[in-house]
Amino acid sequence: MAKTNPARGMRDFLPADVRKREYVIKIIKEVYESYGFEPLETPAVENLETLLGKYGEEGNQLIFRILKRGEKLDLQNATSENDLADLALRYDLTVPLARVVSHYRDKLPKFLKRYQIQPVWRADRPARGRFREFFQCDVDWIGSRSAVIEAELISAVTDVLRRLGFNDFWVRINHRDLLLTLLGGFGICPELLDPAVIVVDKLDKIGPAAVAGELKALGVEKAESLVSIIQKTTSSVEELRKDFGSGPVPDAALENLEAIISLANCPAVIIDPSLARGLSYYTGAIFEINVPDLAGSLGGGGRYDGLIGMFSKEQIPACGFSLGLERILVVMEERRMFPPEIETASPADVLVTLFSSETIRESLKIAAELRTAGIRVTVYPEPDKIGKQLRYADQINIPIVVLVGESELQEDSVSIKNLVQSGQKSVGRKNLIKEIKAMLPTR
Amino acid sequence: MAKTNPARGMRDFLPADVRKREYVIKIIKEVYESYGFEPLETPAVENLETLLGKYGEEGNQLIFRILKRGEKLDLQNATSENDLADLALRYDLTVPLARVVSHYRDKLPKFLKRYQIQPVWRADRPARGRFREFFQCDVDWIGSRSAVIEAELISAVTDVLRRLGFNDFWVRINHRDLLLTLLGGFGICPELLDPAVIVVDKLDKIGPAAVAGELKALGVEKAESLVSIIQKTTSSVEELRKDFGSGPVPDAALENLEAIISLANCPAVIIDPSLARGLSYYTGAIFEINVPDLAGSLGGGGRYDGLIGMFSKEQIPACGFSLGLERILVVMEERRMFPPEIETASPADVLVTLFSSETIRESLKIAAELRTAGIRVTVYPEPDKIGKQLRYADQINIPIVVLVGESELQEDSVSIKNLVQSGQKSVGRKNLIKEIKAMLPTR
Repeated sequence: MAKTNPARGMRDFLPADVRKREYVIKIIKEVYESYGFEPLETPAVENLETLLGKYGEEGNQLIFRILKRGEKLDLQNATSENDLADLALRYDLTVPLARVVSHYRDKLPKFLKRYQIQPVWRADRPARGRFREFFQCDVDWIGSRSAVIEAELISAVTDVLRRLGFNDFWVRINHRDLLLTLLGGFGICPELLDPAVIVVDKLDKIGPAAVAGELKALGVEKAESLVSIIQKTTSSVEELRKDFGSGPVPDAALENLEAIISLANCPAVIIDPSLARGLSYYTGAIFEINVPDLAGSLGGGGRYDGLIGMFSKEQIPACGFSLGLERILVVMEERRMFPPEIETASPADVLVTLFSSETIRESLKIAAELRTAGIRVTVYPEPDKIGKQLRYADQINIPIVVLVGESELQEDSVSIKNLVQSGQKSVGRKNLIKEIKAMLPTR
Repeated sequence: MAKTNPARGMRDFLPADVRKREYVIKIIKEVYESYGFEPLETPAVENLETLLGKYGEEGNQLIFRILKRGEKLDLQNATSENDLADLALRYDLTVPLARVVSHYRDKLPKFLKRYQIQPVWRADRPARGRFREFFQCDVDWIGSRSAVIEAELISAVTDVLRRLGFNDFWVRINHRDLLLTLLGGFGICPELLDPAVIVVDKLDKIGPAAVAGELKALGVEKAESLVSIIQKTTSSVEELRKDFGSGPVPDAALENLEAIISLANCPAVIIDPSLARGLSYYTGAIFEINVPDLAGSLGGGGRYDGLIGMFSKEQIPACGFSLGLERILVVMEERRMFPPEIETASPADVLVTLFSSETIRESLKIAAELRTAGIRVTVYPEPDKIGKQLRYADQINIPIVVLVGESELQEDSVSIKNLVQSGQKSVGRKNLIKEIKAMLPTR
């Protein structure tokens, strides 16, 4: 017997799951569109070279590679996996966006505002809330270095969360230069900055003592005091400035953070000097959104002024935010945040029964008439005992059953059975639509 | 410089493309849901073994395989591509559905009605209208052998096409047993039936003479008269029965076709004895939908009573229809079938200008207020010459610009410029929302 489970770390979504996903996606789209962001979609599959060298070493290893086909696949002379693969599944939506911006530069407005809600794939070790296929809900603004970009992006994603019913999130913000200057001031040599950032990024997972230990191994003598500095969150840039003491001060980064915080005008924004973000393409402000009852973040992002330049001659500044659909769904599920019409959706308003082979055509005709009137109608697929048909309707949560029997047809009437209120009545064919509409909640 | 094109045979969708795709998908979903079909989604990636052996030899070769990772990738001992790959991109939505039905049998209703609108991938040679990533819009009904299934599926997909504005399509229908009996009656031996079906499937592409030639090579003496029989379309099953002459007659298949046609009650349905459908999993009625101005079909499907049994002990009957999103879009684009609000969509209703660094906060505040009132607002990202900001609004098709300057702020007013009607007026801040709503078309 063949295996029937989905591939490791991937999931099937049954109807109730899809409805919840679509409910959240709809709100995200509405809010992004209210800010003037436009939809973009890119293929799941990219040329391998498009993805390589953009995410750092750790990211490279998590890319799903697609085997070359036909004559291109030269098994005998292949020495590495990159000889065997020419394509790959996208790892995020940011690198494809950078490729698109370079490719269609002439067709796109100077300031491109795009959103993109699509799956990405990472060959990560599956864990609770961590999947190998998951949806990112990205919103990016291309073409300006202004702090207005960051401020409006923060405003858009926090609007999304509020519309979904979240009111206890906070937005952590930091700046790559701030972190790098701080690490440099504590004696990290330039070539060890990237590994040091990755160590800092693990603070939430491994705790301060372990981070201090790993930083010591990278050459930081006063690792404990460095860790104690980055552990302090604040909403005041001035307070933060003090932490640099007599060392070099990243003035531009501090001013940028100050401008973003002032324009965002959102009490949920706090500066977290330990925020690092794993991806290597970030160059400026970085952010992450958290809620108390989730270990990971609901989303994150940052400025990546260098990435588009890796695809084109032009250096084009850019900044974006990505909400994780699965993380949002996990929390909403646990907190029961879905409206009742999503939780209790039924596949149809009405089931039309099939009494006998002689009545099938009439049943299908009635179903078609009801659909024309905007009513969602399913038909029992084969003549069967009426009790069985009623149980089926009840089982799949359909509130109304229309019974079309031979006697009813002779009298030009049908019976309507309300499974919610347990009533049944016979109505004339010409009143059927009106009667059913009266029984349904107004939509 | 890195390549910036999408991978071969795949496409990026810019905002105008996405809007058209979403318009069509929305109508397909609405119609499928009006028939009581529920949404299902499965991962893009399946275990390779799930897909192998389901589509026939030709299909197997078009599957994109995903390279094994880490220690599982044993380059030295690999002798074939199946040693190198453990996963694959889904080739259609039917085999994943069969896997899902087997896997969640206890959680799913006896008669499962599901729709699924997702991309599939095939390593086919790209051509006009043929892509390596394309969307299928599938609707399937599981659990019954009744002809009601086929009739209602035909009704659902033809409703979709009518709702999209098509009125010149026809639904070709055939039955696998009818074709196989016909081929057998003309002397094709059982082991050559599958290749013969593939030859018949090429009738549209290579023409009757070439098909006759290839059938002769498979052992059909009277190939010309076989081809002349399958070339005749009809809407009468009785007429079709005559073509079997003194040979064996597939009574059950003919009765099934008769029942489907009678229940579907749709003048666009015609029997086409040459209809073959390439996929090997079909077992009963098969169909395809065509329009005059497209060489390929807009969609197709059929009954596959054996496929789910390949995944489970239980043989579960099933039937489905798949609309090709890309084919529908190609024809709609050429015939200009999109409503004006889709063709001329703008990214926002209003652009709010940024006059100077002193007015930014006020501009963002106004933008937020307008959004709260349901107006879609974009903000120019940085202070700049007003002429430039107006040209940008015009270029991206935004009808209304709100000018927030220092003098306006002092007077607690703003200026509204209508780029469509070329008017400009100053209004008090408290009247702004009302004034703008009056300028927008009602939605």
